[in-house]
Amino acid sequence: MNSNKWYERSGRDGDVVISTRVRLARNLNRYPFPAEMNLEQKAQVVDSICKAAAKEGTPVSLRYIDVANLPQREALSLVERHLISPEFSRCEEGSGLLLSADEDVSLMINEEDHLRIQTMVPGLELDEAYETADQLDSFLDGQLRFAFDDRLGYLTQCPTNLGTGMRASIMLHLPALQDSGAIQQLANTVAKLGLTIRGLYGEGSKPEGAIYQLSNQVTLGISEKAAIENLKGIAAQIIRQERTAREELCRNPHFEDRVWRSLGILQTARLLTRDEFMALISNVRVGAALDMLPGVGLDLVSALINAAQPATLLAAAGEDLEPGARDALRAKIVRERLAETGKAQ
Amino acid sequence: MNSNKWYERSGRDGDVVISTRVRLARNLNRYPFPAEMNLEQKAQVVDSICKAAAKEGTPVSLRYIDVANLPQREALSLVERHLISPEFSRCEEGSGLLLSADEDVSLMINEEDHLRIQTMVPGLELDEAYETADQLDSFLDGQLRFAFDDRLGYLTQCPTNLGTGMRASIMLHLPALQDSGAIQQLANTVAKLGLTIRGLYGEGSKPEGAIYQLSNQVTLGISEKAAIENLKGIAAQIIRQERTAREELCRNPHFEDRVWRSLGILQTARLLTRDEFMALISNVRVGAALDMLPGVGLDLVSALINAAQPATLLAAAGEDLEPGARDALRAKIVRERLAETGKAQ
Repeated sequence: MNSNKWYERSGRDGDVVISTRVRLARNLNRYPFPAEMNLEQKAQVVDSICKAAAKEGTPVSLRYIDVANLPQREALSLVERHLISPEFSRCEEGSGLLLSADEDVSLMINEEDHLRIQTMVPGLELDEAYETADQLDSFLDGQLRFAFDDRLGYLTQCPTNLGTGMRASIMLHLPALQDSGAIQQLANTVAKLGLTIRGLYGEGSKPEGAIYQLSNQVTLGISEKAAIENLKGIAAQIIRQERTAREELCRNPHFEDRVWRSLGILQTARLLTRDEFMALISNVRVGAALDMLPGVGLDLVSALINAAQPATLLAAAGEDLEPGARDALRAKIVRERLAETGKAQ
Repeated sequence: MNSNKWYERSGRDGDVVISTRVRLARNLNRYPFPAEMNLEQKAQVVDSICKAAAKEGTPVSLRYIDVANLPQREALSLVERHLISPEFSRCEEGSGLLLSADEDVSLMINEEDHLRIQTMVPGLELDEAYETADQLDSFLDGQLRFAFDDRLGYLTQCPTNLGTGMRASIMLHLPALQDSGAIQQLANTVAKLGLTIRGLYGEGSKPEGAIYQLSNQVTLGISEKAAIENLKGIAAQIIRQERTAREELCRNPHFEDRVWRSLGILQTARLLTRDEFMALISNVRVGAALDMLPGVGLDLVSALINAAQPATLLAAAGEDLEPGARDALRAKIVRERLAETGKAQ
């Protein structure tokens, strides 16, 4: 198993923060926005960006992936790994993806904008994620000349991205705050501060796996640094609140029981739906974060969450499977990976 | 852990039959039935039976237990081990219990009758269980002279025991027949044949652990041998039906999943109520019977079922515990015993 990918590692404040993402929206000033371009223009944009990214001195080595011609399961697996947007996975001819070997840097070409530069880092690493994106942005800007207005900043297809074109976000595991019902109040508070928090999986009030995404909303009239500092401050508060709520949880003997039996089911089940898996792995993740489960660390949990997603499962199998067979494969992969790291008891 | 007790072993046809029990009701002809006796008479009966059982040449060595002066948890633990009746556990002065070291032979003195001789054997062993009881009966009869009428047979307090005074029963694990809903029909059928089948734990239509007891009802106008042959024949049919129903179960992938995750929960849970334990161990038992679970055999399952019963837990702990603490102790004991036999995966 290759453990080099960002989504198979844990990082700073990893007990609560799964990963950090920074995304910059950019457009080439010689072309209309993708929605207005013909196929030839799109091909030119793809070509220009690929050439620029491959130029000597590039801060990161990228390989080209022809998303439009991938099997659907592989395109959806890229979505599950947060490397492309769901819309981009359905893209027609004229789009393209540049991806680093570690999958920590991805460039979507001709999604909503000509270019979306995205960097991902495990744990809470807003500065690092921004710097990597910024370096690549500067390197490409030098060659491609991005559409920029002195008053508005970077020009983007959607006005909500105008200005910095930056969306910085943190993927948070908030099982204790979810349990205590504190998320809704948190959502109201962060909204007043120009941020948004939403469930990453599922649309309900209790997202699967208790995984949330906190991101900045404001891109206009604020510098990238200021937006990131703002996000950092709020993140620190949420992390503190989640940790306090977990201390409370630990006083309930049913919590320890829930964590352990969730691990027991993952170690033995022969069928696991995605919903059940997400509920169980969330319990195991908080147990691992609290050092309750010998041999089960956050890296392993992150790797399992990635490996167990539906399209990623099928992509690994190299074939499409009936839901029942997919649930059996999910259970098998989870069981085997948990067994590899030694049995916890 | 002492594994010599009958309830910690499995025997013939152990996939379906947990154990066999034979009980003979006897009364001394010099005394009225216990309900009519004063304390002095009761003491004389206890004394007579204890002396007779200790005479040279006794087929089984028995020790005396003063049930009336046991802590309640220990008396109830004897009930859970099927060594005494629930009524007997609440007995006042003037009763007594003689018990073999293996706990496969127990003599209740001054329960409903002066003497109840009971033998237990793991698996389906009606002949062996009857022979042991019969030998002890003959040995004691030679000294004590049991009340016997040439026309009616052995005289007993309750007319339903008149005649042979024998109740032979088989403890059956019938999860597949319970699942398929076939038990009610089975109960109707065996009733016509002079037998009865009922849940051993719990009063509902689905007894906890899917454990049932099949026993003869008729004691008058039928020899012991004939009653046992009748029971054997019906037991063989039920065993066949259960095995066929299990083959059907095995075709359902959810069944394998249920067996494995039940084991997983037992291996990891920190709190187990008795109801949940019985449901899980029933799944594990059928998995063990089908050789699905490496390292988990029927002996271990029998030992766990015994050890996890509420009063037996408290008796082992040597103290009474709150329900929450008892559930934690149950989970701990189950976990530790499962870990001892090596981890199954």
